[in-house]
Amino acid sequence: MKWPVALAWALALPLAATGNPQDDGLFQYSTTRALLAGLYDGDLSIAEASHHGDFAIGTVNAIDGELIAFDGHFFRVGSDGHAHRLGPDTRTPFIVMKHFQQDLESLLPDPLDQSGLVQNLDTLLSSANHFHAIRIRGHFRSVVTRSEPRQTPPYRPLAEIMAEEQVTFELGEVEGTLVGFHSPSFVEGLNVPGYHFHFLTSDEERGGHVLALVSVRGRISIDTAHRLELQLPEGRPFADANLHDDRGKELDAVERGHKEAGSFGESAH
Amino acid sequence: MKWPVALAWALALPLAATGNPQDDGLFQYSTTRALLAGLYDGDLSIAEASHHGDFAIGTVNAIDGELIAFDGHFFRVGSDGHAHRLGPDTRTPFIVMKHFQQDLESLLPDPLDQSGLVQNLDTLLSSANHFHAIRIRGHFRSVVTRSEPRQTPPYRPLAEIMAEEQVTFELGEVEGTLVGFHSPSFVEGLNVPGYHFHFLTSDEERGGHVLALVSVRGRISIDTAHRLELQLPEGRPFADANLHDDRGKELDAVERGHKEAGSFGESAH
Repeated sequence: MKWPVALAWALALPLAATGNPQDDGLFQYSTTRALLAGLYDGDLSIAEASHHGDFAIGTVNAIDGELIAFDGHFFRVGSDGHAHRLGPDTRTPFIVMKHFQQDLESLLPDPLDQSGLVQNLDTLLSSANHFHAIRIRGHFRSVVTRSEPRQTPPYRPLAEIMAEEQVTFELGEVEGTLVGFHSPSFVEGLNVPGYHFHFLTSDEERGGHVLALVSVRGRISIDTAHRLELQLPEGRPFADANLHDDRGKELDAVERGHKEAGSFGESAH
Repeated sequence: MKWPVALAWALALPLAATGNPQDDGLFQYSTTRALLAGLYDGDLSIAEASHHGDFAIGTVNAIDGELIAFDGHFFRVGSDGHAHRLGPDTRTPFIVMKHFQQDLESLLPDPLDQSGLVQNLDTLLSSANHFHAIRIRGHFRSVVTRSEPRQTPPYRPLAEIMAEEQVTFELGEVEGTLVGFHSPSFVEGLNVPGYHFHFLTSDEERGGHVLALVSVRGRISIDTAHRLELQLPEGRPFADANLHDDRGKELDAVERGHKEAGSFGESAH
């Protein structure tokens, strides 16, 4: 069942016409291109990262699972599909985060399928050229997530690991939270253009990087940002890496789960 | 005459092994892709911009010339080749800036040709994957600069304007300052990867975007940054623009003056 665009607009409740009093921006540590190149060990601890936001997706060192955070609680979902709370000393090689401040809320009282959800989100975003943090809390049917096993050096490129070792999970009827961002196309060298979501069940037991979902009903919250702060790793591994290659196709394969039909990341914009 | 790399290193004087106590980052308003798409009117005033840096390159609204700033003084070089001080109310659609804090200094007592200069700079940069602000003060022979005439709406794409209306100047024997940045390849959707320099003569009379130079002797100052703050315009023109197109070839044509041999922007990294 698809949600008519006009109805979606009618239910969208703008909380502040002029946005946040302080338009805090996104914070990002390292780049997707560095991650694709195999730079899996960063210097940023969760304790340090938490100064930059309470809402995040990313990974942890040695890509030991998928990172998700909201309301200031940080988790990783390992290759066993289980979620674990992250301690303050855990380090990350890549994280995108924000202090989540809701600008707009939209209700989905009836289930929306994945393409309906993307269409609905497209109408809610103020522009495809700005950044948006997106939180969706609700009831989900069949969320397909993935994670990956902890790696040991020497690290292979991410696309190779995902092709060979990615583990997927199908979560049936669950309550949970989608945490993600929509980023402009021009960040393609740095981050994932379009939608990028991670998931955690309400019991904080299961989750991962979202590849697909069958349906969702619940509540969408959107936080718009006009600023991005990019922090680059300072050590030699990052400084010496070959980050010239355009790994756009690898990024697409890694983020979208090898281009299965209708996966996230596509947008009507 | 080329400068041997070993000698360049010997003359490089690191001022602080660990960098600045506060590693302030680059600040950037809007993106090159927006500029290429014809978004020539920004909301950021020079007064506001100056909080983010005293060292800058960019342009002013209606692309009425090339912007250059150092030591907190902001100039535009118009299509007549003449430099004019900018008032605090002037607005910019695109600027890249930093509070310049010298990390490294290198002397060039003998003239270096352009490829020798690029080779020398390549050895001085800590990494092609970090950001560097670069100031070169000295005596220059034959600096080729360019500017462009003020536009009126409806604006055409930048590559079209440069192909048809770009004005070039050849400055003979002059004292002056090169102001510029070296940015990582992964910023290609946002900014100019590699080197990007603007020039101002010491008498503050002439300058522009640098297309080429025959030789330089003087003093190179480098300021390394590991952070980029990107501020996006909030208005509808930016929000509604089509910024999906990869305008890499257009950027190259615009920045390098239509790919003349040996122009800036190439790097050994």
